Amino acid sequence: MRVVLVAPRNPLNIGAAARAMSNFGFRSLRVVNPFEPSFREARSAVGASEILENAQLFNTVAEAVADCALVVGTTAVRNRELQHPVRRPEYGARLIRKRLRSGGGVALIFGSEKFGLSNDDLSHCHWLIRIPTCDENISMNLGQAVAVCLYELIRDSKLEREPKNLELASSGELERITMLLLEALDTSGFLSRRRVKDADERIRRLVRRLNLPARDAVIWLGILRQMLWKMNSAMGPNERENK
Amino acid sequence: MRVVLVAPRNPLNIGAAARAMSNFGFRSLRVVNPFEPSFREARSAVGASEILENAQLFNTVAEAVADCALVVGTTAVRNRELQHPVRRPEYGARLIRKRLRSGGGVALIFGSEKFGLSNDDLSHCHWLIRIPTCDENISMNLGQAVAVCLYELIRDSKLEREPKNLELASSGELERITMLLLEALDTSGFLSRRRVKDADERIRRLVRRLNLPARDAVIWLGILRQMLWKMNSAMGPNERENK
Repeated sequence: MRVVLVAPRNPLNIGAAARAMSNFGFRSLRVVNPFEPSFREARSAVGASEILENAQLFNTVAEAVADCALVVGTTAVRNRELQHPVRRPEYGARLIRKRLRSGGGVALIFGSEKFGLSNDDLSHCHWLIRIPTCDENISMNLGQAVAVCLYELIRDSKLEREPKNLELASSGELERITMLLLEALDTSGFLSRRRVKDADERIRRLVRRLNLPARDAVIWLGILRQMLWKMNSAMGPNERENK
Repeated sequence: MRVVLVAPRNPLNIGAAARAMSNFGFRSLRVVNPFEPSFREARSAVGASEILENAQLFNTVAEAVADCALVVGTTAVRNRELQHPVRRPEYGARLIRKRLRSGGGVALIFGSEKFGLSNDDLSHCHWLIRIPTCDENISMNLGQAVAVCLYELIRDSKLEREPKNLELASSGELERITMLLLEALDTSGFLSRRRVKDADERIRRLVRRLNLPARDAVIWLGILRQMLWKMNSAMGPNERENK
């Protein structure tokens, strides 16, 4: 996988592209015809990564993508005169991953900050990706566009579903909490002030709705026990006799 | 949906966060305790958006998220002492969208560039999102992290499958191209030089593998006709008689 920046002008954007690559595990950065001082500045920046150091310079897009079996351009515009197929990243990334798995080199090309890819640049592409931005502001910052595209490439659709790792409290634990809470409510006078017939059931449902994680059950039991103890010890001897 | 930046220091990052919000159609930016000159600079930058102009300032995270039913933090770190549930954006975004559909306010909180969210900030969160960065460089640029999270929120899983909008050439068109190509190969002598029994079938399959778009069929027919015409008119009279 090669990330190709065509004629970038801002050293911060070149650095940001390299940073997103490093965040998401991509290594090969190619730069076509950059604004020379910017490229030098990006490379010499403090903390400039190995990716920037090893970035390859090219004079033309044709040379930069010569070893790639699939060349994908990026565009902010919906309709281009060239009428390439324009794909959303959701689907485009799937095609790119498929090609990478089959061993073919893939180039993902980003145009300059101001003008994007020229028609000549685009003619080297098999198809285009358009990040689905709003009509009011279609143009993304270069570094952010690179980050979004690379994120989509490492994204894992299987993880959209609920993970199984949050263990919830068992019914037994919930019932122990319910009993202690009822006792605490009784001791505090909460239940006697608003007496309802089905108080127990209401409190039981209240506790079930908390969706308590297993590891929190012990803490809540401890909290309730402590409050019960305090309420009981705060009572005068007469009150205690009445109970 | 509110995007909350806690103690951001770099005006470029504040601007970049606002830009990603505008790209993806989010409006409400809240800034907690920013480095004051940076916030001023970001707001007064050329082309500063309405989003920045309308950004709300808060002194504490508690105040910034007070009207939100769901508060989601972001972290680069895998394991925190606080042991919030840490979710990948693929799943986290689904939960956030669900909450937004049910009408509850959601805050998505990003920490400062250098330190991320403090334990105190995190304690206001219901759970955390971690963008799945590589171990070698887990920390993302703030503007890029905002862009990736917001992109995930507007992403449409249904579009992962092949879109139906690229119309392919019909079998009739493919067969017309096959016939013309066979004639051109015959005329050029290509077929007589490497004669094989099932040449027609091979050429037919070759054309089918091109995956020709409907709108390109006419162009290829024209190209073949023109080449046939040129080959025929380039022949001497004797050759033409032999045919």
